[in-house]
Amino acid sequence: MIDTGSTDAVEDICVFWEIVAGRIPSDKVAEDANTLAFMDIDPGADGHLLIIPKHHSVDLLSVPTEDLVATTLAAQRIAKAMYTHLAAEGVNVLNCSGAACWQTVFHFHLHVIPRYRDKSKDRMELPFEPGTPSDADTRAQYARLLSAAL
Amino acid sequence: MIDTGSTDAVEDICVFWEIVAGRIPSDKVAEDANTLAFMDIDPGADGHLLIIPKHHSVDLLSVPTEDLVATTLAAQRIAKAMYTHLAAEGVNVLNCSGAACWQTVFHFHLHVIPRYRDKSKDRMELPFEPGTPSDADTRAQYARLLSAAL
Ligand SMILES: [Zn+2]
Ligand SMILES: [Zn+2]
Repeated sequence: MIDTGSTDAVEDICVFWEIVAGRIPSDKVAEDANTLAFMDIDPGADGHLLIIPKHHSVDLLSVPTEDLVATTLAAQRIAKAMYTHLAAEGVNVLNCSGAACWQTVFHFHLHVIPRYRDKSKDRMELPFEPGTPSDADTRAQYARLLSAAL
Repeated sequence: MIDTGSTDAVEDICVFWEIVAGRIPSDKVAEDANTLAFMDIDPGADGHLLIIPKHHSVDLLSVPTEDLVATTLAAQRIAKAMYTHLAAEGVNVLNCSGAACWQTVFHFHLHVIPRYRDKSKDRMELPFEPGTPSDADTRAQYARLLSAAL
C-alpha cells in the first residue's frame, strides 16, 4: 500500500506505481535507474508523454532531490528526441502539484508535450490570459515572498 | 551581445540578461549562485514568478545540466514558500521552449505559478482539452519515440 496522503483505502492504490510494477500496461518510451517515461493516455498534442520517478512521491513539494533531478534530466533528453524524431517545433514541460491545479494522479510527474503549428496534431491552449492584478496586490505578493527569505 | 540564435541585431538584446545585470529593473524574490527569481509582469495567478539561470541559454534543449538542475531546485524551494507565504493551494511549474509553444523571451526560464481556488486570484485555464487522436496516430508517435532509443 502506497501512502498517498489519502485516508481512503480505495484511493491508496497509486496508478503510476502499478505502471512501474507492470501491473497496469503502458506504452513505455524510456527508462533509467530512477525514472520511467510513457505515453499520456489523454494527449494534449501528439506524442505527449509523462515522466515519473519510480519511487512514489506525491508532488513537487515532497519529491526527493535525486528523483526530481533525474526526472528533469530525462525530460530534457526526451525533449530533444521530440525535435529529432517527432518533428516537434516546440516543447512544453508542465508539472501540476495539487488538486487545485489539475493534478489528478498523486504521484509526482512531468508532462512533456511536443508542440506543432499544425493544429491537427496540437490541441494545446495558452493556460493563462495575462492578468492585470492591481499594483497593490502585486506588491503584497512580492512582499510576502520576500519575507520567506528564500 | 548575447547570442539568441537571432540574426537581427535588435533582437540580440536579451531582456533577462539585462535583468541579471541590473540594467532593467525587476522585483527579485530570490537569488543564488546560479539562478535568479523575479515576479512575472503578466501573472497568470497572483504571485506568478519566473526563475532563470544567470547564464544565458535559449531553451530546455540548450541549457547546461548545472543550470537546469539549479533552476529546478530553486523552483521546488520557491513552490514550498508559495504554500507557506502565499497560502497557495497548488503550484504549476511550466517551461515553454520554442516560439510554437508560447516562449516569448529566448532565455531559458521556468514559470512557477501558485494556484488558488479563489478565481479573483487565479486566471489560469487548463492548457489542453484531452484529445482523441486516432489509435494509428498514437502508435506512430510511440514507435518514433521508441526508435530514438532514449
Ligand atoms: Zn505513486
Ligand atoms: Zn539571456
